[in-house]
Amino acid sequence: MPYVNIKVTKEGVTPEQKAKLIQGVTQLLVDVLGKNPQTTVVVIEEIDTDNWGIGGESVTVRRQRKQ
Amino acid sequence: MPYVNIKVTKEGVTPEQKAKLIQGVTQLLVDVLGKNPQTTVVVIEEIDTDNWGIGGESVTVRRQRKQ
Amino acid sequence: MPYVNIKVTKEGVTPEQKAKLIQGVTQLLVDVLGKNPQTTVVVIEEIDTDNWGIGGESVTVRRQRKQ
Amino acid sequence: MPYVNIKVTKEGVTPEQKAKLIQGVTQLLVDVLGKNPQTTVVVIEEIDTDNWGIGGESVTVRRQRKQ
Amino acid sequence: MPYVNIKVTKEGVTPEQKAKLIQGVTQLLVDVLGKNPQTTVVVIEEIDTDNWGIGGESVTVRRQRKQ
Amino acid sequence: MPYVNIKVTKEGVTPEQKAKLIQGVTQLLVDVLGKNPQTTVVVIEEIDTDNWGIGGESVTVRRQRKQ
Repeated sequence: MPYVNIKVTKEGVTPEQKAKLIQGVTQLLVDVLGKNPQTTVVVIEEIDTDNWGIGGESVTVRRQRKQ
Repeated sequence: MPYVNIKVTKEGVTPEQKAKLIQGVTQLLVDVLGKNPQTTVVVIEEIDTDNWGIGGESVTVRRQRKQ
Repeated sequence: MPYVNIKVTKEGVTPEQKAKLIQGVTQLLVDVLGKNPQTTVVVIEEIDTDNWGIGGESVTVRRQRKQ
Repeated sequence: MPYVNIKVTKEGVTPEQKAKLIQGVTQLLVDVLGKNPQTTVVVIEEIDTDNWGIGGESVTVRRQRKQ
Repeated sequence: MPYVNIKVTKEGVTPEQKAKLIQGVTQLLVDVLGKNPQTTVVVIEEIDTDNWGIGGESVTVRRQRKQ
Repeated sequence: MPYVNIKVTKEGVTPEQKAKLIQGVTQLLVDVLGKNPQTTVVVIEEIDTDNWGIGGESVTVRRQRKQ
Protein backbone atom coordinates (compact mmCIF):
# COMPACT_ATOMS: atom_id res chain seq x y z
CA MET A 1 0.00 0.00 0.00
CA PRO A 2 2.92 2.45 -0.02
CA TYR A 3 2.85 5.64 -2.04
CA VAL A 4 6.09 6.98 -3.47
CA ASN A 5 6.49 10.35 -5.14
CA ILE A 6 9.71 10.94 -7.07
CA LYS A 7 10.44 14.47 -8.23
CA VAL A 8 13.28 15.03 -10.71
CA THR A 9 14.23 17.81 -13.08
CA LYS A 10 12.62 17.58 -16.52
CA GLU A 11 15.60 16.69 -18.64
CA GLY A 12 14.65 13.97 -21.09
CA VAL A 13 13.90 11.07 -18.75
CA THR A 14 12.89 8.22 -21.11
CA PRO A 15 9.92 5.85 -20.65
CA GLU A 16 12.50 3.05 -20.13
CA GLN A 17 14.16 4.96 -17.29
CA LYS A 18 10.77 5.70 -15.73
CA ALA A 19 9.91 2.00 -15.94
CA LYS A 20 13.18 1.16 -14.14
CA LEU A 21 12.45 3.67 -11.38
CA ILE A 22 8.93 2.27 -10.90
CA GLN A 23 10.15 -1.34 -10.93
CA GLY A 24 13.13 -0.62 -8.67
CA VAL A 25 11.35 1.36 -5.97
CA THR A 26 8.43 -1.10 -5.87
CA GLN A 27 10.88 -4.02 -5.44
CA LEU A 28 12.72 -2.10 -2.71
CA LEU A 29 9.50 -1.81 -0.70
CA VAL A 30 8.85 -5.53 -1.17
CA ASP A 31 12.38 -6.43 -0.08
CA VAL A 32 12.73 -4.07 2.89
CA LEU A 33 9.19 -3.90 4.28
CA GLY A 34 7.40 -6.89 2.71
CA LYS A 35 4.84 -4.61 1.04
CA ASN A 36 2.37 -5.87 -1.57
CA PRO A 37 3.53 -4.60 -4.99
CA GLN A 38 -0.03 -4.74 -6.38
CA THR A 39 -1.09 -1.80 -4.22
CA THR A 40 2.21 0.10 -4.31
CA VAL A 41 1.79 3.38 -6.17
CA VAL A 42 4.71 5.33 -7.66
CA VAL A 43 4.25 8.80 -9.16
CA ILE A 44 7.13 10.47 -11.01
CA GLU A 45 6.95 14.23 -11.47
CA GLU A 46 9.28 16.05 -13.83
CA ILE A 47 9.98 19.66 -12.88
CA ASP A 48 11.25 22.37 -15.23
CA THR A 49 14.80 23.47 -14.31
CA ASP A 50 13.52 27.05 -13.85
CA ASN A 51 11.21 25.73 -11.13
CA TRP A 52 13.79 23.71 -9.17
CA GLY A 53 15.95 25.58 -6.71
CA ILE A 54 18.98 24.47 -4.75
CA GLY A 55 21.55 26.65 -3.00
CA GLY A 56 19.19 29.60 -3.44
CA GLU A 57 19.23 29.58 -7.24
CA SER A 58 17.40 27.72 -10.00
CA VAL A 59 18.96 24.69 -11.66
CA THR A 60 18.80 26.62 -14.96
CA VAL A 61 21.06 29.36 -13.58
CA ARG A 62 23.26 26.87 -11.72
CA ARG A 63 23.92 24.92 -14.92
CA GLN A 64 24.73 28.09 -16.90
CA ARG A 65 27.08 29.36 -14.20
CA LYS A 66 28.97 26.06 -14.08
CA GLN A 67 29.69 25.92 -17.81
CA MET B 1 -8.74 25.54 5.84
CA PRO B 2 -8.16 22.02 4.53
CA TYR B 3 -5.86 21.33 1.61
CA VAL B 4 -6.67 18.44 -0.71
CA ASN B 5 -4.38 17.16 -3.45
CA ILE B 6 -5.91 14.77 -5.97
CA LYS B 7 -3.55 12.98 -8.35
CA VAL B 8 -5.03 11.09 -11.30
CA THR B 9 -3.66 9.82 -14.60
CA LYS B 10 -3.78 12.34 -17.44
CA GLU B 11 -6.47 10.85 -19.62
CA GLY B 12 -8.79 13.55 -20.80
CA VAL B 13 -10.37 14.74 -17.57
CA THR B 14 -12.74 17.53 -18.63
CA PRO B 15 -13.16 20.93 -16.92
CA GLU B 16 -16.69 19.78 -15.94
CA GLN B 17 -15.30 16.67 -14.23
CA LYS B 18 -12.67 18.76 -12.45
CA ALA B 19 -15.39 21.15 -11.27
CA LYS B 20 -17.35 18.19 -9.86
CA LEU B 21 -14.30 16.88 -8.02
CA ILE B 22 -13.60 20.32 -6.51
CA GLN B 23 -17.25 20.84 -5.56
CA GLY B 24 -17.65 17.32 -4.18
CA VAL B 25 -14.54 17.13 -2.03
CA THR B 26 -15.14 20.65 -0.64
CA GLN B 27 -18.70 19.69 0.31
CA LEU B 28 -17.44 16.46 1.90
CA LEU B 29 -15.15 18.46 4.21
CA VAL B 30 -18.06 20.75 5.12
CA ASP B 31 -20.36 17.79 5.84
CA VAL B 32 -17.92 15.58 7.76
CA LEU B 33 -15.70 18.10 9.58
CA GLY B 34 -17.67 21.36 9.40
CA LYS B 35 -14.83 23.09 7.53
CA ASN B 36 -15.20 26.52 5.95
CA PRO B 37 -15.44 26.04 2.16
CA GLN B 38 -14.08 29.56 1.50
CA THR B 39 -10.61 28.54 2.69
CA THR B 40 -10.68 24.94 1.45
CA VAL B 41 -8.11 24.47 -1.30
CA VAL B 42 -8.25 21.60 -3.81
CA VAL B 43 -5.42 20.96 -6.28
CA ILE B 44 -5.85 18.38 -9.04
CA GLU B 45 -2.69 17.05 -10.69
CA GLU B 46 -2.84 15.01 -13.88
CA ILE B 47 0.05 12.57 -14.31
CA ASP B 48 1.21 11.06 -17.61
CA THR B 49 0.55 7.29 -17.72
CA ASP B 50 4.31 6.69 -18.25
CA ASN B 51 4.92 8.39 -14.91
CA TRP B 52 2.35 6.47 -12.84
CA GLY B 53 3.35 3.06 -11.55
CA ILE B 54 1.31 0.38 -9.85
CA GLY B 55 2.23 -3.27 -9.37
CA GLY B 56 5.80 -2.40 -10.39
CA GLU B 57 4.96 -1.26 -13.91
CA SER B 58 3.74 1.93 -15.55
CA VAL B 59 0.05 2.41 -16.35
CA THR B 60 1.06 2.73 -20.02
CA VAL B 61 2.53 -0.79 -20.02
CA ARG B 62 -0.26 -2.16 -17.83
CA ARG B 63 -2.91 -0.90 -20.27
CA GLN B 64 -1.08 -2.36 -23.30
CA ARG B 65 -0.60 -5.71 -21.60
CA LYS B 66 -4.30 -5.93 -20.71
CA GLN B 67 -5.56 -5.34 -24.24
CA MET C 1 -5.59 4.34 -9.27
CA PRO C 2 -6.02 7.88 -7.92
CA TYR C 3 -4.08 9.16 -4.94
CA VAL C 4 -5.71 11.70 -2.65
CA ASN C 5 -3.93 13.54 0.15
CA ILE C 6 -6.12 15.42 2.62
CA LYS C 7 -4.42 17.78 5.06
CA VAL C 8 -6.44 19.18 7.96
CA THR C 9 -5.57 20.76 11.28
CA LYS C 10 -5.08 18.30 14.14
CA GLU C 11 -8.15 19.01 16.22
CA GLY C 12 -9.68 15.76 17.36
CA VAL C 13 -10.78 14.21 14.08
CA THR C 14 -12.33 10.87 15.09
CA PRO C 15 -11.78 7.49 13.38
CA GLU C 16 -15.44 7.64 12.29
CA GLN C 17 -14.91 11.02 10.60
CA LYS C 18 -11.75 9.73 8.92
CA ALA C 19 -13.68 6.70 7.66
CA LYS C 20 -16.33 9.03 6.20
CA LEU C 21 -13.69 11.12 4.42
CA ILE C 22 -12.05 7.99 2.96
CA GLN C 23 -15.38 6.52 1.89
CA GLY C 24 -16.70 9.81 0.49
CA VAL C 25 -13.69 10.83 -1.56
CA THR C 26 -13.26 7.30 -2.97
CA GLN C 27 -16.93 7.26 -4.03
CA LEU C 28 -16.54 10.72 -5.59
CA LEU C 29 -13.73 9.41 -7.82
CA VAL C 30 -15.87 6.42 -8.80
CA ASP C 31 -18.86 8.65 -9.60
CA VAL C 32 -17.06 11.45 -11.47
CA LEU C 33 -14.20 9.63 -13.20
CA GLY C 34 -15.20 5.96 -13.08
CA LYS C 35 -12.05 5.07 -11.11
CA ASN C 36 -11.52 1.66 -9.53
CA PRO C 37 -12.00 2.03 -5.73
CA GLN C 38 -9.75 -0.99 -5.03
CA THR C 39 -6.66 0.94 -6.13
CA THR C 40 -7.74 4.37 -4.90
CA VAL C 41 -5.47 5.52 -2.06
CA VAL C 42 -6.47 8.23 0.43
CA VAL C 43 -3.99 9.60 2.97
CA ILE C 44 -5.18 11.96 5.71
CA GLU C 45 -2.56 14.08 7.44
CA GLU C 46 -3.34 16.01 10.62
CA ILE C 47 -1.24 19.12 11.12
CA ASP C 48 -0.64 20.88 14.44
CA THR C 49 -2.30 24.33 14.51
CA ASP C 50 1.15 25.91 15.16
CA ASN C 51 2.29 24.45 11.84
CA TRP C 52 -0.63 25.62 9.69
CA GLY C 53 -0.55 29.17 8.41
CA ILE C 54 -3.19 31.22 6.65
CA GLY C 55 -3.28 34.98 6.19
CA GLY C 56 0.36 35.11 7.30
CA GLU C 57 -0.25 33.77 10.80
CA SER C 58 -0.63 30.35 12.43
CA VAL C 59 -4.05 28.89 13.10
CA THR C 60 -3.10 28.84 16.81
CA VAL C 61 -2.63 32.62 16.86
CA ARG C 62 -5.64 33.20 14.57
CA ARG C 63 -7.90 31.26 16.95
CA GLN C 64 -6.62 33.13 20.01
CA ARG C 65 -7.03 36.50 18.33
CA LYS C 66 -10.63 35.73 17.34
CA GLN C 67 -11.76 34.80 20.83
CA MET D 1 18.31 20.24 4.25
CA PRO D 2 14.79 21.65 4.09
CA TYR D 3 12.44 20.89 1.23
CA VAL D 4 9.93 23.53 0.17
CA ASN D 5 7.13 22.97 -2.33
CA ILE D 6 5.35 26.08 -3.62
CA LYS D 7 2.16 25.56 -5.62
CA VAL D 8 0.69 28.54 -7.49
CA THR D 9 -1.76 28.92 -10.35
CA LYS D 10 -0.18 28.82 -13.81
CA GLU D 11 -0.56 32.40 -14.89
CA GLY D 12 2.63 33.59 -16.51
CA VAL D 13 5.09 33.42 -13.62
CA THR D 14 8.41 34.57 -15.15
CA PRO D 15 11.84 32.95 -14.63
CA GLU D 16 12.84 36.12 -12.75
CA GLN D 17 9.91 35.76 -10.34
CA LYS D 18 10.71 32.08 -9.83
CA ALA D 19 14.33 33.01 -9.07
CA LYS D 20 13.12 35.53 -6.46
CA LEU D 21 10.88 32.92 -4.83
CA ILE D 22 13.74 30.40 -4.69
CA GLN D 23 16.21 32.97 -3.37
CA GLY D 24 13.72 34.41 -0.85
CA VAL D 25 12.49 31.19 0.69
CA THR D 26 16.03 29.76 0.91
CA GLN D 27 17.22 32.91 2.71
CA LEU D 28 14.20 32.74 5.05
CA LEU D 29 15.22 29.23 6.14
CA VAL D 30 18.80 30.43 6.70
CA ASP D 31 17.61 33.42 8.74
CA VAL D 32 14.94 31.73 10.85
CA LEU D 33 16.33 28.21 11.34
CA GLY D 34 20.02 28.52 10.41
CA LYS D 35 19.64 25.94 7.63
CA ASN D 36 22.39 25.26 5.08
CA PRO D 37 21.29 26.83 1.76
CA GLN D 38 23.43 24.38 -0.25
CA THR D 39 21.10 21.49 0.62
CA THR D 40 17.85 23.49 0.68
CA VAL D 41 15.58 22.35 -2.15
CA VAL D 42 12.70 24.47 -3.50
CA VAL D 43 10.24 23.09 -6.05
CA ILE D 44 7.69 25.41 -7.68
CA GLU D 45 4.66 23.80 -9.31
CA GLU D 46 2.33 25.77 -11.56
CA ILE D 47 -1.23 24.50 -11.63
CA ASP D 48 -3.78 25.18 -14.38
CA THR D 49 -6.64 27.38 -13.12
CA ASP D 50 -9.13 24.61 -14.05
CA ASN D 51 -7.30 22.34 -11.59
CA TRP D 52 -7.19 24.71 -8.62
CA GLY D 53 -10.28 24.91 -6.45
CA ILE D 54 -11.17 27.28 -3.64
CA GLY D 55 -14.59 27.92 -2.15
CA GLY D 56 -15.86 24.83 -3.96
CA GLU D 57 -15.22 26.13 -7.47
CA SER D 58 -12.28 26.31 -9.85
CA VAL D 59 -10.21 29.47 -10.14
CA THR D 60 -11.23 29.61 -13.83
CA VAL D 61 -14.92 29.85 -12.90
CA ARG D 62 -14.21 32.15 -9.95
CA ARG D 63 -12.34 34.61 -12.19
CA GLN D 64 -15.12 34.59 -14.84
CA ARG D 65 -17.82 35.13 -12.21
CA LYS D 66 -15.96 38.09 -10.70
CA GLN D 67 -15.58 39.99 -13.97
CA MET E 1 18.96 16.74 -6.85
CA PRO E 2 15.94 14.44 -6.79
CA TYR E 3 13.39 14.52 -4.00
CA VAL E 4 11.66 11.31 -3.00
CA ASN E 5 8.75 11.07 -0.59
CA ILE E 6 7.84 7.60 0.66
CA LYS E 7 4.57 7.23 2.56
CA VAL E 8 3.90 3.96 4.40
CA THR E 9 1.57 2.91 7.18
CA LYS E 10 2.95 3.42 10.70
CA GLU E 11 3.53 -0.15 11.77
CA GLY E 12 6.87 -0.42 13.50
CA VAL E 13 9.28 0.42 10.69
CA THR E 14 12.73 0.20 12.31
CA PRO E 15 15.61 2.69 11.88
CA GLU E 16 17.49 -0.09 10.05
CA GLN E 17 14.65 -0.53 7.56
CA LYS E 18 14.44 3.23 7.06
CA ALA E 19 18.20 3.33 6.40
CA LYS E 20 17.78 0.60 3.77
CA LEU E 21 14.97 2.50 2.05
CA ILE E 22 17.05 5.71 2.00
CA GLN E 23 20.16 3.90 0.76
CA GLY E 24 18.24 1.86 -1.83
CA VAL E 25 16.22 4.64 -3.41
CA THR E 26 19.25 6.96 -3.54
CA GLN E 27 21.29 4.26 -5.28
CA LEU E 28 18.41 3.62 -7.72
CA LEU E 29 18.48 7.27 -8.79
CA VAL E 30 22.26 7.09 -9.24
CA ASP E 31 21.98 3.89 -11.31
CA VAL E 32 19.01 4.82 -13.50
CA LEU E 33 19.42 8.58 -13.95
CA GLY E 34 23.03 9.27 -12.93
CA LYS E 35 21.87 11.64 -10.17
CA ASN E 36 24.27 13.01 -7.54
CA PRO E 37 23.54 11.19 -4.24
CA GLN E 38 24.88 14.13 -2.18
CA THR E 39 21.88 16.28 -3.14
CA THR E 40 19.29 13.49 -3.28
CA VAL E 41 16.71 13.95 -0.52
CA VAL E 42 14.48 11.14 0.76
CA VAL E 43 11.66 11.79 3.23
CA ILE E 44 9.79 8.86 4.79
CA GLU E 45 6.38 9.59 6.30
CA GLU E 46 4.61 7.04 8.50
CA ILE E 47 0.83 7.31 8.45
CA ASP E 48 -1.51 5.95 11.13
CA THR E 49 -3.62 3.06 9.78
CA ASP E 50 -6.81 5.05 10.63
CA ASN E 51 -5.59 7.75 8.23
CA TRP E 52 -4.76 5.49 5.27
CA GLY E 53 -7.60 4.47 3.01
CA ILE E 54 -7.73 1.97 0.19
CA GLY E 55 -10.80 0.43 -1.41
CA GLY E 56 -12.92 3.06 0.36
CA GLU E 57 -12.05 1.97 3.89
CA SER E 58 -9.25 2.58 6.36
CA VAL E 59 -6.40 0.09 6.72
CA THR E 60 -7.45 -0.33 10.37
CA VAL E 61 -10.91 -1.56 9.35
CA ARG E 62 -9.53 -3.57 6.42
CA ARG E 63 -7.13 -5.44 8.73
CA GLN E 64 -9.88 -6.18 11.28
CA ARG E 65 -12.26 -7.40 8.59
CA LYS E 66 -9.66 -9.77 7.14
CA GLN E 67 -8.87 -11.48 10.42
CA MET F 1 -4.24 31.27 -3.25
CA PRO F 2 -0.78 29.70 -3.12
CA TYR F 3 -0.06 26.61 -1.10
CA VAL F 4 3.38 26.20 0.45
CA ASN F 5 4.64 23.04 2.14
CA ILE F 6 7.83 23.35 4.18
CA LYS F 7 9.46 20.13 5.36
CA VAL F 8 12.27 20.36 7.93
CA THR F 9 13.86 17.92 10.35
CA LYS F 10 12.15 17.69 13.74
CA GLU F 11 14.72 19.35 15.95
CA GLY F 12 12.98 21.71 18.33
CA VAL F 13 11.54 24.31 15.98
CA THR F 14 9.74 26.76 18.28
CA PRO F 15 6.25 28.25 17.73
CA GLU F 16 7.99 31.63 17.27
CA GLN F 17 10.20 30.26 14.49
CA LYS F 18 7.18 28.64 12.84
CA ALA F 19 5.33 31.97 13.00
CA LYS F 20 8.31 33.68 11.31
CA LEU F 21 8.36 31.06 8.53
CA ILE F 22 4.62 31.46 7.94
CA GLN F 23 4.81 35.26 7.99
CA GLY F 24 7.93 35.38 5.82
CA VAL F 25 6.85 33.01 3.08
CA THR F 26 3.39 34.60 2.88
CA GLN F 27 4.95 38.06 2.52
CA LEU F 28 7.34 36.73 -0.15
CA LEU F 29 4.37 35.58 -2.25
CA VAL F 30 2.71 38.99 -1.80
CA ASP F 31 5.91 40.82 -2.80
CA VAL F 32 6.97 38.65 -5.76
CA LEU F 33 3.64 37.52 -7.24
CA GLY F 34 1.09 39.92 -5.74
CA LYS F 35 -0.81 37.02 -4.14
CA ASN F 36 -3.61 37.55 -1.62
CA PRO F 37 -2.25 36.62 1.84
CA GLN F 38 -5.75 35.81 3.13
CA THR F 39 -5.92 32.69 0.95
CA THR F 40 -2.23 31.76 1.14
CA VAL F 41 -1.81 28.48 3.01
CA VAL F 42 1.48 27.39 4.59
CA VAL F 43 1.93 23.91 6.08
CA ILE F 44 5.10 23.07 8.04
CA GLU F 45 5.93 19.40 8.50
CA GLU F 46 8.62 18.27 10.94
CA ILE F 47 10.28 14.99 10.02
CA ASP F 48 12.17 12.71 12.42
CA THR F 49 15.90 12.62 11.62
CA ASP F 50 15.65 8.82 11.13
CA ASN F 51 13.15 9.49 8.34
CA TRP F 52 15.15 12.13 6.45
CA GLY F 53 17.82 10.93 4.06
CA ILE F 54 20.48 12.83 2.19
CA GLY F 55 23.59 11.45 0.51
CA GLY F 56 22.11 7.95 0.91
CA GLU F 57 22.04 7.98 4.70
CA SER F 58 19.69 9.25 7.41
CA VAL F 59 20.32 12.59 9.10
CA THR F 60 20.59 10.67 12.41
CA VAL F 61 23.54 8.64 11.09
CA ARG F 62 25.05 11.63 9.29
CA ARG F 63 25.06 13.68 12.51
CA GLN F 64 26.64 10.85 14.54
CA ARG F 65 29.33 10.28 11.91
CA LYS F 66 30.25 13.96 11.83
CA GLN F 67 30.76 14.28 15.58
